[in-house]
Amino acid sequence: MERVKESESESEPASSSSAATGKLEEEVGRVMDQARELHESGASLLWKISNEEQSLRQKAISLESSIRRVRSSINSLISKKLLDPKFARKLEEDLQRASSILTDGEAAAFLPAEAQGRFLRMFLGPINVRASRKEVQLKVKEEYNSYRDRTAFLFLLFPLTLLILKSWIWEGCLPAFPVQLYEAWLLFLYTGLAMRENILRANGSDIRPWWIYHHYCAMLMALVSLTWEIKRQPNCAQKQRGVELFLQWAMMQGVAMLLQNRYQRQRLYTRIALGKANRMDVVWGETSGVDGQLWVLCPILFAMQGFEAYVGLLLLKTAFVGVVTEWQVICCGILLVLMAVGNFINTIQTLVTKSRFKAKMKRSKSKPELD
Amino acid sequence: MERVKESESESEPASSSSAATGKLEEEVGRVMDQARELHESGASLLWKISNEEQSLRQKAISLESSIRRVRSSINSLISKKLLDPKFARKLEEDLQRASSILTDGEAAAFLPAEAQGRFLRMFLGPINVRASRKEVQLKVKEEYNSYRDRTAFLFLLFPLTLLILKSWIWEGCLPAFPVQLYEAWLLFLYTGLAMRENILRANGSDIRPWWIYHHYCAMLMALVSLTWEIKRQPNCAQKQRGVELFLQWAMMQGVAMLLQNRYQRQRLYTRIALGKANRMDVVWGETSGVDGQLWVLCPILFAMQGFEAYVGLLLLKTAFVGVVTEWQVICCGILLVLMAVGNFINTIQTLVTKSRFKAKMKRSKSKPELD
Repeated sequence: MERVKESESESEPASSSSAATGKLEEEVGRVMDQARELHESGASLLWKISNEEQSLRQKAISLESSIRRVRSSINSLISKKLLDPKFARKLEEDLQRASSILTDGEAAAFLPAEAQGRFLRMFLGPINVRASRKEVQLKVKEEYNSYRDRTAFLFLLFPLTLLILKSWIWEGCLPAFPVQLYEAWLLFLYTGLAMRENILRANGSDIRPWWIYHHYCAMLMALVSLTWEIKRQPNCAQKQRGVELFLQWAMMQGVAMLLQNRYQRQRLYTRIALGKANRMDVVWGETSGVDGQLWVLCPILFAMQGFEAYVGLLLLKTAFVGVVTEWQVICCGILLVLMAVGNFINTIQTLVTKSRFKAKMKRSKSKPELD
Repeated sequence: MERVKESESESEPASSSSAATGKLEEEVGRVMDQARELHESGASLLWKISNEEQSLRQKAISLESSIRRVRSSINSLISKKLLDPKFARKLEEDLQRASSILTDGEAAAFLPAEAQGRFLRMFLGPINVRASRKEVQLKVKEEYNSYRDRTAFLFLLFPLTLLILKSWIWEGCLPAFPVQLYEAWLLFLYTGLAMRENILRANGSDIRPWWIYHHYCAMLMALVSLTWEIKRQPNCAQKQRGVELFLQWAMMQGVAMLLQNRYQRQRLYTRIALGKANRMDVVWGETSGVDGQLWVLCPILFAMQGFEAYVGLLLLKTAFVGVVTEWQVICCGILLVLMAVGNFINTIQTLVTKSRFKAKMKRSKSKPELD
């Protein structure tokens, strides 16, 4: 300890000053002790948490593999016809329930995390985006849904406004700035969607990888279209044909997104209630109707995919016939066709899965339970 | 429990089949029990963690306010000349050490998190980017530094290549595609930097807000420049003057970034060793030389800021004189001037803080310790 000196220009009694400094010294010492204590209890809590998490993680992994093992032995007994189908169904349902408890309950936080993927690492660095609390994960999911609702609305409104203004005020010729603003917004929107979907994946959602790739393609297209000069020369109608088609397609996309969002929520809640889905799942994309509504949604989706491919092919045609020879036209054309094909394949795949599931349900209903 | 039925098309002995189904049923029951158990222990662990964290958080907050209180009473005693300056210095150093333990140790995870800000929420949703382990926070910090190292190198190389190719191969006329590729890269780079810096802030770094705003401006400029048509008509030299100046400025920026990165690391490590800095701090930006080196860095920085403002004003001039009348020129001009002024003010502010700190150090050295 250092010697306490009195200040030279002292005016108050020396004793009061020395008492004050003594008290201060004591307080500083106490603060130091508290800081050290806090550091130690913080370190020990973190150590304890990490140990207990480790043990729960082990248990969760072994339970996951047990479920897989039992499921495969049920299947092998079924294929050998050694198991009564109804009883097998009951066992499968129990297993499904156990698996839901594991992936949808509090223990889910201890299942090994999905790899976060290059996309998030590129933008965010090595930060962990996995929430350990189920309630936080569900909040993330809810926010994703409401983000999609909001953007679907803008997705419809933005191109609609542009097209209306084009014929009313701009006399058939789109000015560059509003279109570029729209393209910049698209870039921002798709980046946000791709980020959120990667985050959902890291939090245990089963979103189909294609929808994320689709958003990468859309990001690239928005970026490319920003560099695409909007021509205002005499032949407006011909030179802006591509942009106009793109805006019309975007409007259709907006309508489809609104319908999808509505039905996907309904369907997700139904599936959760049936124990068929994890609450983190995204019944995203193009086949998310509640049964009857699916037959309203499906034609719209296929029409949209067809129109998307048509716009893409039209762009490619204008590029090769030589009306517009910019590389952006070719690039956007290829991307649109690629996205249309990918969407189509994925929609078909989901429909096939769905109809198989339905057939299975029907078979199980045709043997009514009599117990 | 359901009655176990034998399959009708049974071929093996009934007893073996019923034994197999019995065993299966047992296994499924065990899996169910394990899932429930795991769910419960997961929930109870999370509950326990949240309680203990809460209590540590309370302690950390109260310690933080104690440190503030003691510091202010030291200051009031100093101003009343009731405290020996040397003793006051010792107390201040102790307090500083306590504060470092709090903000740099394991307890830091329990200090209330900084608000994450709109920028991250816009792109990521409500996900938490705060790491609870100090080691993870430091990994994030390290990755930020190495990201800056890598990009500084590209920052120099990219415009240099463009300028060399321009005079060697492209005969004084830049083609649009490579320039737009460069601009897209800038957009990606600045978005990544802005995200990482927001994440650092949420993890307790004291990075000056200006540098984050600076990157928002730079993002906007990259986006605007993407829509900027690169003219290749006869008067190339005149019409591409702005782009050329911008590339030259970017090269200077690259050199300055490389120097800064080197010196900032040195300085950060010195400051950590002196206990003056938290390891999460970013001695970022324009005043991060170790004392002697600062007088090498400062002229470069001021020259760069001057050049930045010059490029901005030149762009504005070309826009108002009427050589190029695109809105992008005006927008980029304003942004460049804004960034130059902001950088200048922030550099001056940091220099003032630094010289005050130095004067304080000098005063304390002029009264040599004799104990």
